[in-house]
Amino acid sequence: MDNLGVVFMSEVVGTAILVLLGCGVVANVALAKNKGFGGGFLMVTIGWGLAVYAGVIAAYNSGAHLNPAVTLGLVASGADTFGSGVPVNFVSIMTYIGAQMIGAILGAVVVWLAYKQHFDQEPEAANKLGVFSTGPAIRSYGWNLVTEIIGTFVLVFVVIGFGRNGDGGGLAALGALPVALLVIAIGASLGGPTGYAINPARDLGPRIAHFLLPIKGKGSSDWSYSWVPVVGPIIGGVLAGASSGVLLPILG
Amino acid sequence: MDNLGVVFMSEVVGTAILVLLGCGVVANVALAKNKGFGGGFLMVTIGWGLAVYAGVIAAYNSGAHLNPAVTLGLVASGADTFGSGVPVNFVSIMTYIGAQMIGAILGAVVVWLAYKQHFDQEPEAANKLGVFSTGPAIRSYGWNLVTEIIGTFVLVFVVIGFGRNGDGGGLAALGALPVALLVIAIGASLGGPTGYAINPARDLGPRIAHFLLPIKGKGSSDWSYSWVPVVGPIIGGVLAGASSGVLLPILG
Amino acid sequence: MDNLGVVFMSEVVGTAILVLLGCGVVANVALAKNKGFGGGFLMVTIGWGLAVYAGVIAAYNSGAHLNPAVTLGLVASGADTFGSGVPVNFVSIMTYIGAQMIGAILGAVVVWLAYKQHFDQEPEAANKLGVFSTGPAIRSYGWNLVTEIIGTFVLVFVVIGFGRNGDGGGLAALGALPVALLVIAIGASLGGPTGYAINPARDLGPRIAHFLLPIKGKGSSDWSYSWVPVVGPIIGGVLAGASSGVLLPILG
Amino acid sequence: MDNLGVVFMSEVVGTAILVLLGCGVVANVALAKNKGFGGGFLMVTIGWGLAVYAGVIAAYNSGAHLNPAVTLGLVASGADTFGSGVPVNFVSIMTYIGAQMIGAILGAVVVWLAYKQHFDQEPEAANKLGVFSTGPAIRSYGWNLVTEIIGTFVLVFVVIGFGRNGDGGGLAALGALPVALLVIAIGASLGGPTGYAINPARDLGPRIAHFLLPIKGKGSSDWSYSWVPVVGPIIGGVLAGASSGVLLPILG
Repeated sequence: MDNLGVVFMSEVVGTAILVLLGCGVVANVALAKNKGFGGGFLMVTIGWGLAVYAGVIAAYNSGAHLNPAVTLGLVASGADTFGSGVPVNFVSIMTYIGAQMIGAILGAVVVWLAYKQHFDQEPEAANKLGVFSTGPAIRSYGWNLVTEIIGTFVLVFVVIGFGRNGDGGGLAALGALPVALLVIAIGASLGGPTGYAINPARDLGPRIAHFLLPIKGKGSSDWSYSWVPVVGPIIGGVLAGASSGVLLPILG
Repeated sequence: MDNLGVVFMSEVVGTAILVLLGCGVVANVALAKNKGFGGGFLMVTIGWGLAVYAGVIAAYNSGAHLNPAVTLGLVASGADTFGSGVPVNFVSIMTYIGAQMIGAILGAVVVWLAYKQHFDQEPEAANKLGVFSTGPAIRSYGWNLVTEIIGTFVLVFVVIGFGRNGDGGGLAALGALPVALLVIAIGASLGGPTGYAINPARDLGPRIAHFLLPIKGKGSSDWSYSWVPVVGPIIGGVLAGASSGVLLPILG
Repeated sequence: MDNLGVVFMSEVVGTAILVLLGCGVVANVALAKNKGFGGGFLMVTIGWGLAVYAGVIAAYNSGAHLNPAVTLGLVASGADTFGSGVPVNFVSIMTYIGAQMIGAILGAVVVWLAYKQHFDQEPEAANKLGVFSTGPAIRSYGWNLVTEIIGTFVLVFVVIGFGRNGDGGGLAALGALPVALLVIAIGASLGGPTGYAINPARDLGPRIAHFLLPIKGKGSSDWSYSWVPVVGPIIGGVLAGASSGVLLPILG
Repeated sequence: MDNLGVVFMSEVVGTAILVLLGCGVVANVALAKNKGFGGGFLMVTIGWGLAVYAGVIAAYNSGAHLNPAVTLGLVASGADTFGSGVPVNFVSIMTYIGAQMIGAILGAVVVWLAYKQHFDQEPEAANKLGVFSTGPAIRSYGWNLVTEIIGTFVLVFVVIGFGRNGDGGGLAALGALPVALLVIAIGASLGGPTGYAINPARDLGPRIAHFLLPIKGKGSSDWSYSWVPVVGPIIGGVLAGASSGVLLPILG
């Protein structure tokens, strides 16, 4: 298979694992009768961080973006190629982002299957949507956007910084650990107001799945908020990429 | 000692440590009067992950399967040899799985000894069985099976993926960390509905120990559920191995 | 850019990230209506540790002090150069410390922006200050000072010790992990009485930000305590550096 | 300084840091008015694990035993030399153990200083002793001894196993991580019944400090139990060492 095919497969599989495990930990904590019910926010942040860890390992050969904000951040940083030696151009960008969206939807469908009985027996519709997509603690689109921009800026800025130390393009096994730790950090530290999407595919893909799946008593997919965790991370990622392009030659 | 002997000893010792520490953390959290009583699901997932960590280090020379689903997944992936250079054939498969079962039973006996007084003073029989074996949050054999298949699929698929990065066959010291982190991830993210056996030996071995040991006021060993955490992980592991055999040449 | 410029930029960016994520986890846990509200002290210590992790990676090229107590500890240890090959002299010391203060103030401003709505809706002024700066559990300047001295001594003594193993001056990616784990350890173990500033910039910078920012209903910046988390860490850091200068040649 | 001097200094400093941070996390969680009060057993196990991490880094050059059970386990395994090239003989064994005891007492004194106000204001004498030394959840000397033997066996058996992978004698920076993770595992999994001393120096040293220090309202030092966390770990360590001597040549 050619390089774009490898990128496509890697990003589909990696993002599917990321969303399966990431949305899974929310299901465990939020849906009634689960063994992890009420497990707390620290458990959610650790679960999401390790979801990224597993996804990055699986998507070794595409450079493991798994996130349009990372892909677009790399573009904004002025990179010539992505991981796997694929040149940066319209087709490769679309391949990354398309694969991420498909993987995210697939992962969300599998979460629903793994927790089927708990979705059926959960009384609150809001808890069901919360497994799939983020929502604001205090609804205020402007400030929610600010929070998502800041969180994604830190993610993309530091991830691109890893590259300096020869650890950037393709992250595998222990190389996935820095990204996982960073995601735990951002979740614990900046996840309070919006639940830290920091990834358009992670939020929009599962929201589409939520909309399409025949989930018992599922309620609204909250499309009025859905643009925030897409636009915020894109702005944050692009700003971070552009800043990296300027700052990294200075920072060394 | 020949290679099969090394495999046998390694898998017995490693699986015994895995079950001792893994079932131990459940005992600490679930049995009355323990210092860790009520420690929460995050503590259970971290304890189980690090139990795998310690077991993998001890079983360095057999490739540290410690789990029939891993052994059978490797077979399904089309591997020619296991760790330690042992060829894949009926005798070696049976050596791995037999050793894993013996180790799991031994480990469960030692947990009982370590927590003897707490087993004696625990009023609820269900909590005693819960130390040894998993049980469903909502009993529904079909869906419970689905959950175990999904969890084990992720485990075996990603573990086989580690191998790409030269970290596969024999996992030691820090090499054991990726597996431990993955097990924490799966526990946090997919452990809610069934308590994530994801390993037939880890569930059936301790259940046999529970059945045989003279545990005070122990109640049923719940044999009617016992096939789920055996069949589910085997299906999940074989599917993951087969998928790896197809996908890894593509993913690189 | 010359080396001092690299140091300045690196320490500004690194300390800003450290304070953004570190004060952020306190905001998440302490300010009303956050998703991590009431997340517990373990979450705070993990969040702060990983904040240090991200900051150290960003400040790779300056040796990632991010803390005047580390800079002064290195001076007291008798080091000739800092990371990045900058000679130890008055100008370089002031560059490090000045950059750390600027970065800390910047990071605190961004925390306020990320949690703007939660600051506005938090009823308790003390919780708002607590996001920015530390305060004593039992106010007793002498003993609070002792606690800060001990905590910072351990930090700087062990950090300088990392250098023995070829891992000292510039800490990147996984090299940042030892510092992060150490900061989690100190927070969990010595953070009870004073909230472990162990870093004058981390405490004074955000306190200045708290004083200057138009935070709704913010109350006092508690200047009467403000010298403790400055003087204590400086004493602890200098003592640790001097001890290292004597002990490390013995300890090897 | 000659090698025995290096061993002595390293073990004093390393064990002091281990006990300072380890007993410190118990103080934070158990003594009234602390910011970490009621932080839970997972926080205690993580704190103790990272205390070992910091102590191991500091005691790099002696091989970082920090525990008479490790020293005696290595003797029982048939080792010819300890870390630092010191031959195994009566004098070197006494140097290790003597230094460990001195370090443990020193570390406990510093904990008392760091938490002075909280010791003074804590109403329960048992909580004060609990910061220094372990005690049983259910007092039963025989079974408490069994639990300590099992926990220490796992510790020493796996630690000696690390040595196979070229990571044994001297453990530094990231090399300290496997030991830390193992100690977290044992604490979470086997710490429920006795609070997991698994180290005679860690328990007896602080108990001596508790006995000697003028702690306000301190109550009994519980000498009737004090032999259990000394004898149990010694038996467990020696059994593990002897088993390793037999098994490791087989396990490879």
